[in-house]
Amino acid sequence: MSAPDEFEQIARLFRPLTRGAAEAFDLLDDAAAIPSRPGFDLVVTKDALVAGVHFQPDDPPDIVARKLLRSNLSDLAAKGAEPYGYFLMTAWPAGFGWKQRQEFARGLDEDGLAFDVILLGGDTVSTPGPLMVSMTLLGWVPSGTMIRRGGAKAGDLLLVSGPIGDGWLDWGPGWGQLDRRWLPDAHRLPNPRLDLREALRAHASAAADVSDGLVADAGHIALASGLGLRLDLERMPLSKPARAWLATQDDQVAALLSLATGGDDYEIVCTAPADHPELIGLTVIGEMVEGEGIEVRVGDQVIDPGQGGWTHK
Amino acid sequence: MSAPDEFEQIARLFRPLTRGAAEAFDLLDDAAAIPSRPGFDLVVTKDALVAGVHFQPDDPPDIVARKLLRSNLSDLAAKGAEPYGYFLMTAWPAGFGWKQRQEFARGLDEDGLAFDVILLGGDTVSTPGPLMVSMTLLGWVPSGTMIRRGGAKAGDLLLVSGPIGDGWLDWGPGWGQLDRRWLPDAHRLPNPRLDLREALRAHASAAADVSDGLVADAGHIALASGLGLRLDLERMPLSKPARAWLATQDDQVAALLSLATGGDDYEIVCTAPADHPELIGLTVIGEMVEGEGIEVRVGDQVIDPGQGGWTHK
Repeated sequence: MSAPDEFEQIARLFRPLTRGAAEAFDLLDDAAAIPSRPGFDLVVTKDALVAGVHFQPDDPPDIVARKLLRSNLSDLAAKGAEPYGYFLMTAWPAGFGWKQRQEFARGLDEDGLAFDVILLGGDTVSTPGPLMVSMTLLGWVPSGTMIRRGGAKAGDLLLVSGPIGDGWLDWGPGWGQLDRRWLPDAHRLPNPRLDLREALRAHASAAADVSDGLVADAGHIALASGLGLRLDLERMPLSKPARAWLATQDDQVAALLSLATGGDDYEIVCTAPADHPELIGLTVIGEMVEGEGIEVRVGDQVIDPGQGGWTHK
Repeated sequence: MSAPDEFEQIARLFRPLTRGAAEAFDLLDDAAAIPSRPGFDLVVTKDALVAGVHFQPDDPPDIVARKLLRSNLSDLAAKGAEPYGYFLMTAWPAGFGWKQRQEFARGLDEDGLAFDVILLGGDTVSTPGPLMVSMTLLGWVPSGTMIRRGGAKAGDLLLVSGPIGDGWLDWGPGWGQLDRRWLPDAHRLPNPRLDLREALRAHASAAADVSDGLVADAGHIALASGLGLRLDLERMPLSKPARAWLATQDDQVAALLSLATGGDDYEIVCTAPADHPELIGLTVIGEMVEGEGIEVRVGDQVIDPGQGGWTHK
């Protein structure tokens, strides 16, 4: 079957993803109109994925779509925001046919329903380059309650919501170092920690999702807060497969640092006052201090984190 | 001079473009928080540009940036919205160095000031493909007053705000057909018709900007409104250089059709009731009718517009 024309493609691929929302005008307009919601702020985050940079060129299109939505949802989770809707940019390469586009849309449909977010608008272009997709995701928080990276205070504890390093082991620099059957599908389908929204809004002084790597994302909090931080990699929670992998490594410090700087974990790193132990289930891994910079330890040993995890992909 | 690291690049290239807006958190966060504005709707539009598809690969980076902002502003103008701020995605190819990035940011700075819009957030990635930039632009309208494509009524006049075809003559299929010195710099720097916002909100029943081509964009209005339209290409306003070019063409019908389907005009096509002649300065080029489809005429002659202008780039 040959591909329908551009208008028909938008109608068939993307219109169902609006689920009839009035603000999307059935995607027949070139803009959406979002009514103000008095008492709330609109939280907006944007993430782009490029084939060969952020995902494997042969990853199934529905998985790419779901990774795009979930990595953006992970940002919203860290901000304490309730997901609302998204704008989508797709740049299709010549070889990315109708069937693949349908699979891409199916992935968005599936996770759009699972996470209760709707498509609000976007733009579709063709490209001589690789597949590239970008999303602007919107969410709501009660006015003035967005959890910022910049809200940490000296003396706050540094906490993390779950295992670190599986993303790296599953892909990227860690690719091939591990029998993939050991791991959950960590890289391909991040699990945005939207379950933590209320607890974070109630207790966290600052938060970020762990996408660039734990050291980098904790560092973003320190930088934005005008503080330094101390971080002990021995306190970092690890999955069973990551612990098994770690046990096989000769250089424990280098191995821990790889896990802590690899990224794509999609857990939450946050700070909270030491007298607020309410962030139950989170693991204390360090503390915020006056000054600047990151002191990374493995137990008693101070190590050099190098540039690891500081650069965005 | 070597390029600064990723964080420093964002700080130096993009932070100044926020002009200190509280909602952008100095770009130290991974999200922006936009306070609700009771009584207003947020109008959101999104457009992407790819090197080799939407602009020449050797176009100066500041011109690319300004075209990106202006083509998005043109969408907002058609919606009757007051520009507010934007989210930016940049995908830099390996060869797109620090100096070029600075030029790109300079273009955004210049036009951001000229049109009073601020950067609110975004994402920067690298790509093995061509330069690609995408913008999600936000504007405000009083609640419920966004001018839609879908608001036209049968019997409404079809109007256009200025000369059609210069974009095509200057670039794209028309490239090389004309001494470029004849033309204003139509393609490279669209002039968003924000001056028409108030008049459109007061009098237009539907509107779109002419980016895909006059026939296509008028067709979008007809489709979204569930109507047909009649359009007379002889009534289409043309610039002096376009008239001079037209005079040299053997096939007048084909030439007019090229001008009417080329796109990148960034004028406004709109509809208004026949008893509302207040859209002064706009040219009546046709009317909306019951039914569906587009009847294109050149004076008394009905012509076949083919697929021209219906497909997005």
